[in-house]
Amino acid sequence: MDLDHLQNQIGEWLCGLGPEADIVISSRIRLARNAAGFAFLSRANPKERSNLEKLLREKILDSEIGKTLSYFSLAEMPPVDRQFLVERHLISREHAFGKGPRGVALSPQENLSIMVNEEDHLRIQGLRSGLQLRTTWNEINRVDSWLEEKIDYAYHPQFGYLTVCPTNVGTGLRASVMLHLPALVMTGQIEKVFQAVSKINLAVRGLYGEGTKASGDFYQISNQPTLGKSEEEIIQNIESVIPQIIKFERTVRETLFDNKREVIEDKACRAYGMLKSARIINSEETMDLLSVVRMGVNLGLIPDLKVHTINELFILTQPAHLQKLERTELSSSERDITRATFIRNRLHNPRNGNS
Amino acid sequence: MDLDHLQNQIGEWLCGLGPEADIVISSRIRLARNAAGFAFLSRANPKERSNLEKLLREKILDSEIGKTLSYFSLAEMPPVDRQFLVERHLISREHAFGKGPRGVALSPQENLSIMVNEEDHLRIQGLRSGLQLRTTWNEINRVDSWLEEKIDYAYHPQFGYLTVCPTNVGTGLRASVMLHLPALVMTGQIEKVFQAVSKINLAVRGLYGEGTKASGDFYQISNQPTLGKSEEEIIQNIESVIPQIIKFERTVRETLFDNKREVIEDKACRAYGMLKSARIINSEETMDLLSVVRMGVNLGLIPDLKVHTINELFILTQPAHLQKLERTELSSSERDITRATFIRNRLHNPRNGNS
Repeated sequence: MDLDHLQNQIGEWLCGLGPEADIVISSRIRLARNAAGFAFLSRANPKERSNLEKLLREKILDSEIGKTLSYFSLAEMPPVDRQFLVERHLISREHAFGKGPRGVALSPQENLSIMVNEEDHLRIQGLRSGLQLRTTWNEINRVDSWLEEKIDYAYHPQFGYLTVCPTNVGTGLRASVMLHLPALVMTGQIEKVFQAVSKINLAVRGLYGEGTKASGDFYQISNQPTLGKSEEEIIQNIESVIPQIIKFERTVRETLFDNKREVIEDKACRAYGMLKSARIINSEETMDLLSVVRMGVNLGLIPDLKVHTINELFILTQPAHLQKLERTELSSSERDITRATFIRNRLHNPRNGNS
Repeated sequence: MDLDHLQNQIGEWLCGLGPEADIVISSRIRLARNAAGFAFLSRANPKERSNLEKLLREKILDSEIGKTLSYFSLAEMPPVDRQFLVERHLISREHAFGKGPRGVALSPQENLSIMVNEEDHLRIQGLRSGLQLRTTWNEINRVDSWLEEKIDYAYHPQFGYLTVCPTNVGTGLRASVMLHLPALVMTGQIEKVFQAVSKINLAVRGLYGEGTKASGDFYQISNQPTLGKSEEEIIQNIESVIPQIIKFERTVRETLFDNKREVIEDKACRAYGMLKSARIINSEETMDLLSVVRMGVNLGLIPDLKVHTINELFILTQPAHLQKLERTELSSSERDITRATFIRNRLHNPRNGNS
């Protein structure tokens, strides 16, 4: 598998077929792990870092899951390819643009990525379409066990797994759910969600994690520091609140639909029309329009379009994806033209179920 | 001929086939005439007004041109029908919503309308597609002669034709040309036109004449007071300046097209996409979008659309036209829905040459 291969597909987690997929884009769990007997990366010298990458790479590929994975070394990878992996949510921004020997092992369906030498020695990430935290946890837990057969993890009997940042000590687990909440944003009720969520010690972030803007009306809800809590408790805590947010969004959508059907239909159809017509379009406008169209599709207002196509477009219209598509570096204004062309072709192509 | 018949057609002047039709929508000439021996309408009592209407109606229908005309009495006409005639530029707003016995005689192609008991006893209007002031003048001059065979006009050997408003005394002629100047508006150069035009004593008005906004980037350029000038001089004065404005607009369009093709194409295609998509659209946004699309069509950026269709839509999407179409009174917000539906159907209908 190489990146060109990846380019012609999208991850399973974007298929839009998971439970509650009208509102829940994806469920994600990541585990932070470090190898015992090696310095944390914050203190490792270049030599140690390099040895560590080689070792972990071998161990991963040698594990039970290893034969299905492809390993990419990031230090030698062009920036556009690294950005490409960030856009697909397969590595973190920090990992992409960090320094020194580091890499990532990926599964063919993009449900699993194992980052080597990110903040911790290992970051094991599982991603699934829709609300599937349990399934994702079971999968990632199994991968974690397979790796543990090969790698001696830094573990403290009292504190649990040891990590660079103290907020990850314990389970090293962060569970997050990506939600699409356009109706709550549109009606200004999203603030209520923020308040409710912060009360039970959960965090809200944008599409690309910490510090990123909630563009496209996407919100990631995840747990805060995990010390003293079991994996079960962390997942339970998120699972208890997500159905309420889903219900809230769905109720507001239905109310909008019942009371202002024409207005919502107008918004959705105009956004769809704009995406099919524009010759120049920037990333932010694209996200905003796709968001409205996605809600329209879920409300049955745009029958000829599949939610799968929209989910794809959120990823495929990002800068690095466009540049890999064109096989050349593009300025921001060149991307805006390429993006518009790409969207137009995709939305007029009958294989996407569009007329 | 009745109004329902009119509804299924548009005037010849909107066909978009006249000379310079990419920029000149239409040429219009109107003559103000009064019958000798009758009080001006500003001084006539209801009885005189009523007698005058009957008499003029008879004379008009009895004239050489009369047998081809249909006469409509406005006093008995529902307001929506009168508004309908205003929207088609066949009568003035003042005539539509004035008082007392009054009417209009119309030719089947809508090139000729003769208003009875407007400000003057008679207002004879000729309309033609594109830049055809001479042709229009020749036609209207012939009609004027035919009417003069039947009606004794109020004429003074020194001052010329006598009219209610002193600004019309003399020839009673107003010649105007309706221009579509989106590129000059877009680049802020329209002010230069205003300045140049006012220097040679011409007036600039909006789409529906005096005091109306220049919506859709339409500007009417017409002569100011005519006393002391011949018909020939008045027409000559306008004809001398219009080609320069056409050239100016065309040069700016070409410059935009050469230097910012993508931007102009984007604007035009988005506007077209919006018109084909919206479910709710008000009159002002419609005019603005149609204006951009019209320029796009003329620049060859929207090959599947005819300028004729766009010209039509400017008129057919007006409030009274929509209400006559639906055969019922519509509130403003109901019209916005009807308008969007009408535009969508018209633009998706292959008989208009659209895909």
